[in-house]
Amino acid sequence: MDDFEKRLAFFRETDRMKYVLRRTYTGDASRRENDAEHSFSLILLAILFESYAPPGADPERVLRMAAVHDLVEIYAGDSYVYDQSAMDSKADRENAAAKRLFGLLPADQGAELEALWREFDAEETPSALFCAALDHFQPLFMNYETEGKSWIEHGVSAQSVRRRVKMIESAVPELYEYSLKLIQSALERGWLKE
Amino acid sequence: MDDFEKRLAFFRETDRMKYVLRRTYTGDASRRENDAEHSFSLILLAILFESYAPPGADPERVLRMAAVHDLVEIYAGDSYVYDQSAMDSKADRENAAAKRLFGLLPADQGAELEALWREFDAEETPSALFCAALDHFQPLFMNYETEGKSWIEHGVSAQSVRRRVKMIESAVPELYEYSLKLIQSALERGWLKE
Repeated sequence: MDDFEKRLAFFRETDRMKYVLRRTYTGDASRRENDAEHSFSLILLAILFESYAPPGADPERVLRMAAVHDLVEIYAGDSYVYDQSAMDSKADRENAAAKRLFGLLPADQGAELEALWREFDAEETPSALFCAALDHFQPLFMNYETEGKSWIEHGVSAQSVRRRVKMIESAVPELYEYSLKLIQSALERGWLKE
Repeated sequence: MDDFEKRLAFFRETDRMKYVLRRTYTGDASRRENDAEHSFSLILLAILFESYAPPGADPERVLRMAAVHDLVEIYAGDSYVYDQSAMDSKADRENAAAKRLFGLLPADQGAELEALWREFDAEETPSALFCAALDHFQPLFMNYETEGKSWIEHGVSAQSVRRRVKMIESAVPELYEYSLKLIQSALERGWLKE
């Protein structure tokens, strides 16, 4: 295959993002959201809230990172953050998936996209912290929008959601304040248990 | 509402992209693709094929444009390119939708995103030509992947697809060559009529 065809082969594989289902529901609570929809939402959040990004975040890099941040789930599957055994095996599954997936591309582009994903995953650079903060906020927001449907199904506690969104505090303070308000309101409505 | 809340109100509305169904099917042909999934695919194509973009295209602008290019369909609906009456009323419906949708945002950001959408729609700048070329290619590729399912359902001819992808020729020549090959192959397989 030449480079053009390698890029298309990779693109063909990304169609699978549409079948990786997350625990979060779509806004009308009719069905679970898939990874393609979630990634699109994250890109929109990155555009909408870019003026709240931490100093040093690179807006273009954040967009690319948001686009690739969950691609390894094509092979590794979605790891539910409140499922400890899934989280324990996450790194191994995702490293194997990354090798397989990014290996489809011409070497330079494969390395570039893999580096973006690894930067996101490490949550260290300003761009990655911003992207990860939005990635933690998005399911919280959707859970709230759907009256806690997924939280109730999985018996999630306010404490575990608070722990999950804690990293937002230093990255995007305004978003963290808002997240705490949503959690408190969800608790009062019985959508989260204490 | 303050600016933060306006951005969230806009984001909440974009959830509707998940319910705007296109004529194109997902790669496994099990269901129609929605606008959120299509937009995500377009962003990936923009990243994967950016080295093929015409001179003067701005990679970051292309990503933003791809993210917002179909948002007006939240209110205006998807206009099937081979349905003339839908195409005739498209501009009026989309202008009204743009006013309503982008008006949800703080004025500066609303104007910025609306300008991106209008630039895309005009297909004049290098960034817009690149983004539009990918937007024309994506359904062609998905139709081919699904053995022409949507083409067959709507009795689409090779000639009308050739007319549809003609604009790709000057924007991304390699992609145009490949598009013509797909059309020819689809014709030979009976997925498109002559």
